[in-house]
Amino acid sequence: MLDLSATSLDLTRALCDIPSVSGDETALADAVHAAVQGLDHLSVHRDGDTIVARTDRSRPQRVVIAGHIDTVPINANVPSRLVTEDAGAYLWGRGTVDMKAGVAVQLKLAAELTDPRIDVTWMWYDHEEVAADLNGLHRLAQNRPDLFAADFAILGEPSDGEVEGGCNGTLRVVVRTTGVRAHSARAWIGENAIHKAAPILQRLAEYRPREVAVEGLVYREGLNAVRIAGGVASNVIPDACEVEVNYRFAPSHTVAEALEHVRNVFAGFEVEQVDASAGARPGLDAPLAQEFLAAVGARPRPKYGWTDVARFSALGIPAVNYGPGDPHLAHHDQERVPVAQIAAVEAGLRAWLSPS
Amino acid sequence: MLDLSATSLDLTRALCDIPSVSGDETALADAVHAAVQGLDHLSVHRDGDTIVARTDRSRPQRVVIAGHIDTVPINANVPSRLVTEDAGAYLWGRGTVDMKAGVAVQLKLAAELTDPRIDVTWMWYDHEEVAADLNGLHRLAQNRPDLFAADFAILGEPSDGEVEGGCNGTLRVVVRTTGVRAHSARAWIGENAIHKAAPILQRLAEYRPREVAVEGLVYREGLNAVRIAGGVASNVIPDACEVEVNYRFAPSHTVAEALEHVRNVFAGFEVEQVDASAGARPGLDAPLAQEFLAAVGARPRPKYGWTDVARFSALGIPAVNYGPGDPHLAHHDQERVPVAQIAAVEAGLRAWLSPS
Repeated sequence: MLDLSATSLDLTRALCDIPSVSGDETALADAVHAAVQGLDHLSVHRDGDTIVARTDRSRPQRVVIAGHIDTVPINANVPSRLVTEDAGAYLWGRGTVDMKAGVAVQLKLAAELTDPRIDVTWMWYDHEEVAADLNGLHRLAQNRPDLFAADFAILGEPSDGEVEGGCNGTLRVVVRTTGVRAHSARAWIGENAIHKAAPILQRLAEYRPREVAVEGLVYREGLNAVRIAGGVASNVIPDACEVEVNYRFAPSHTVAEALEHVRNVFAGFEVEQVDASAGARPGLDAPLAQEFLAAVGARPRPKYGWTDVARFSALGIPAVNYGPGDPHLAHHDQERVPVAQIAAVEAGLRAWLSPS
Repeated sequence: MLDLSATSLDLTRALCDIPSVSGDETALADAVHAAVQGLDHLSVHRDGDTIVARTDRSRPQRVVIAGHIDTVPINANVPSRLVTEDAGAYLWGRGTVDMKAGVAVQLKLAAELTDPRIDVTWMWYDHEEVAADLNGLHRLAQNRPDLFAADFAILGEPSDGEVEGGCNGTLRVVVRTTGVRAHSARAWIGENAIHKAAPILQRLAEYRPREVAVEGLVYREGLNAVRIAGGVASNVIPDACEVEVNYRFAPSHTVAEALEHVRNVFAGFEVEQVDASAGARPGLDAPLAQEFLAAVGARPRPKYGWTDVARFSALGIPAVNYGPGDPHLAHHDQERVPVAQIAAVEAGLRAWLSPS
């Protein structure tokens, strides 16, 4: 049984020590469900391994505060370990950064804040680390769209205890060349598709990514080959070459605009879209967002990686990332969260949500 | 039992209809062995599935005339089919071009020419179509180097009934770039190894292959990417890219010179040699080669593809390719030999070897 009155550090450890790799979240979802369903000030809903707990104080405004309970695979880093170094104390282990410390803070405050200043819809969901169509938030939005009614959303993804607004969009395309096969002893009979890819790599090498200001935050874009492949056999002139390109684009652009930009960069070549996810505008001009920033005392930064904030953005709900842990250490074998950051995020959220 | 008094066309069909894909030549080697070992004017040797038959008329000069008995895999094109079109009669099927028509002519003349003008060492060998270390000629040169004593060599590889002198050498290298991995959402933290390969492809695209005159024949070279590969995952900046390059170089250059040339082309990049085979000088200034050309009435052409003539060249024996069939149809599903070319090569060799 999870003890929601424990410190957020102890609660983080308890969550980390219940393994919950994507697809195997039921034990942890059951524990979360059991811990919140007895609380009088919350109405609790369950959809698969996603648990939703809502206050209903009839406040004029509502915020969704969400975190996923699954992790990437464990690599001999569970149970968690508390290590004190000169620089301070760190909790090591899978999930400490991504994102059980964030979930622990949320669970603790869900129990503690019986009368929040703003109504809160807490969401703890499954399958974030795998294919988008399995994502618990995606499923919940289909099954219970009513639960998404809100004026603002906070995702507890690791942001080093800062507020990271919105996120870049991401587009993947394959750029192709074709040629004519021939024996490499008589190459002039063929046409070498790999040689024809030279301008594709040249344009990528020369590309200078844009920095785009969106609602006061500067998003840094990126256009990168992530894969190249071509070749038939060691004595054959290749008739095909593929370059897979990933474009990370500022949230002020739509997927269609991003695709058009990439088509312009690779004008003269066949460009096929492989997949795409729109970015999320930071939405920090929303009054509730401004209040939140003031309360937690944070200066917002742009989020580069794509996160589920984009799902809220797509529903017209401004959303930010706010959680303990360095995002560069997510999925890393050295995954560890500074203990002080867990407490700081807890204090920030409490300051904002407590009745004045 | 093979009938060596049959027409060379019928003998070609008989050879084609005994399947002998590399590694499975024993039935055909047994048939060839049985057909020649009863002939009084030949001394016969066997090494695995390679059969050697020598005349010993104490002529002042000796020629090796050789052909491989294996084929690439059959693709529903055995048994052979004789097809008459407006353009003439063709024998269709696996091995008709590469190179059982050539072997049939050789077997027929081995039996017929009991008193040749020049002593002949006939060699019919296994495992030409697979890895070089399995090659029957390679093995025979280790086990019985004495059998290679000769002033000239003729390989019956398909040359469209013309004489193709020498062959280009071939060198394969891998040209590498390295970088630093990073999440593609924060590409500026990494270094993209695929982008760094742009100059490699650019230099290949701009490269103008040389044409090199060697002993009167002009060899056309070629420098081509035959494979490119790079990439870790669709959201990771790749830290490595490899371009495999095949250089076909004129026989006036050594492997070391070829490697130096390729290193110059790719100056600034890591270049690793994968494999190499020296070319073969045409050797057409040898007196016996000149007599041969005069007798068969052919104007020599350069051979571009690498063949076993290079083995003879490496032993200091001038060697040419002379056989029926279009080399472009070797290994092809449309493999077929013009019947008239079989007869023409037979006539050419007979004219040269018959006592004057």
